[in-house]
Amino acid sequence: MDIRSVREYLGSDWTAVQERIDLSLKSDIALLNATNSSILSNSGKQMRPLLSLLVARACSGCEATEATVRYAAASELLHNATLLHDDVADNSDQRRGVPTIMSLMGPSVSVLVGDYWLVKAMELILGGSEGDHRVIKIFSKTLSDLAEGEMLQLQKAQNGDTGQDDYLRIIYNKTASLFEAACVSAAISVGASEEYENASRDYAVALGLAFQIKDDILDYAGTESVGKPLGVDILEQKITMPLLGAFAVCPEKEQHIRGLVKSIADHPENRDEIVAFVKGNGGLEYAVAQLDKYVSQAVSALAVLPPCVERDMLEELAYFTAKRIM
Amino acid sequence: MDIRSVREYLGSDWTAVQERIDLSLKSDIALLNATNSSILSNSGKQMRPLLSLLVARACSGCEATEATVRYAAASELLHNATLLHDDVADNSDQRRGVPTIMSLMGPSVSVLVGDYWLVKAMELILGGSEGDHRVIKIFSKTLSDLAEGEMLQLQKAQNGDTGQDDYLRIIYNKTASLFEAACVSAAISVGASEEYENASRDYAVALGLAFQIKDDILDYAGTESVGKPLGVDILEQKITMPLLGAFAVCPEKEQHIRGLVKSIADHPENRDEIVAFVKGNGGLEYAVAQLDKYVSQAVSALAVLPPCVERDMLEELAYFTAKRIM
Repeated sequence: MDIRSVREYLGSDWTAVQERIDLSLKSDIALLNATNSSILSNSGKQMRPLLSLLVARACSGCEATEATVRYAAASELLHNATLLHDDVADNSDQRRGVPTIMSLMGPSVSVLVGDYWLVKAMELILGGSEGDHRVIKIFSKTLSDLAEGEMLQLQKAQNGDTGQDDYLRIIYNKTASLFEAACVSAAISVGASEEYENASRDYAVALGLAFQIKDDILDYAGTESVGKPLGVDILEQKITMPLLGAFAVCPEKEQHIRGLVKSIADHPENRDEIVAFVKGNGGLEYAVAQLDKYVSQAVSALAVLPPCVERDMLEELAYFTAKRIM
Repeated sequence: MDIRSVREYLGSDWTAVQERIDLSLKSDIALLNATNSSILSNSGKQMRPLLSLLVARACSGCEATEATVRYAAASELLHNATLLHDDVADNSDQRRGVPTIMSLMGPSVSVLVGDYWLVKAMELILGGSEGDHRVIKIFSKTLSDLAEGEMLQLQKAQNGDTGQDDYLRIIYNKTASLFEAACVSAAISVGASEEYENASRDYAVALGLAFQIKDDILDYAGTESVGKPLGVDILEQKITMPLLGAFAVCPEKEQHIRGLVKSIADHPENRDEIVAFVKGNGGLEYAVAQLDKYVSQAVSALAVLPPCVERDMLEELAYFTAKRIM
């Protein structure tokens, strides 16, 4: 799938989102503008506003509304705000193959610019006049989910006791909740029926889980060349789906491997044994099966929506998620 | 002035704010609860909710409303969120005489818990049902002010060109804007007249500026024993009121001293010369005169409000700000 062709298809709606993002971030503080430009020049796939626009158009059969554009822009700002903060939390040097703001300009800029993007996202969600209180509540829950998800992940990494349920909660909070907010707010922005709104939610949550599982698979099985460092999760003591899959297949070694993960800071050389355990016990295949399950769920949810180009594109995006290499 | 006696006077209103803060922060994630408790056990003066409650009661002649309590709690959460992020930005080891979360648990926890407190503050501001859109806008502007203020301060510190106007904008954004939000939201929460609302705003802004100027004076003239490290501003290349005052008295040395501040990272030994310049050219006296001016403005603004114990306490708080030693 070619993301660029989806953007071209969305035409002036896509341009409107980009302009809304630029307008929101504009400040008279030079350091802020310079940092914002640097982030925007490496903005990646922009999956969330893409989803917002496609959902709004699929639900309504029309172009996006002013509110759709605002919520779409807000989702992208919110996503980048969390990346700026996660880079500080994880001390990350690279993202999408280029140096992070954290590594270029230090933790202070990364934290403060993250705060600024978060605030600007909120302003977009609140809207010009009265705002839509339901949408405000949805994004407010997502913000809470994001913060709690990162804290739970940190706690579980410290304790070394992440189970399947913990993992699903963490990836829902970290990723699926914002996919959900982007799609449901878009449905609301065009006055979609409850049925369409629920379909948008089911699609978004399943896609978000699939997206994060794929990310976690790539950490074991990606290629360095596409700009994503590999094997970072284990070094950060994060137990993700591939490892949980191998535990399911080979429970007798679970305790030993969890011990290695927990002491990885002192013994980084143990990473090879952990990776070999995952690969030797079908951990990747297990994770791929889970990924496929959520992709299927996402595609099934779309059946409720009226057939249209946008629905086809949402379906393609789900399959693309399963196949993407970065 | 004894802050404790003000709290005792506020009685159940004060307790309600503390309970609202506890309730808001409560989570099922143990790491989050442990961190929250540690922050709450060292919560300092809690000036912002104190101001909210006093303003609401002075404007209405009654006890605080449910909305007053929510906004008061939100102001305190927001303030602490910014401290958690500032500690990462400034790499601070100590606050109020005890180690920061940043130094105890690392930047990741400080950033993420800061995000959590920010989100919980927003939830309180949004309220249970429809929320008050005017109050939401006020706090939203404050959030933007806070982020922009820190970025402007950082930019000015890098460039070494902070002037009086820049300084006033920075301290308005960093401190006075949240004082303003705390007091104006409190006035709105009790349905105060426009006249009372404006008086509350004028009081809060002047007090906020005074409060930050006092903080900046203490960085030169405080005592280590009260738990605040001294001389930090110069090391962070921050040009504040005492130094600006000395520039006003002795402009011929301004360029030389700005050069020393700008290169302080490479030559920390120059700090002594800068401090001597400030003290030798009446910089502290100049800053104290500015401080007194804003304290007087704050007190004058109160004249509009009806005479009552709360108004007297607001006045005392202004004088207390000028005298406080930490």
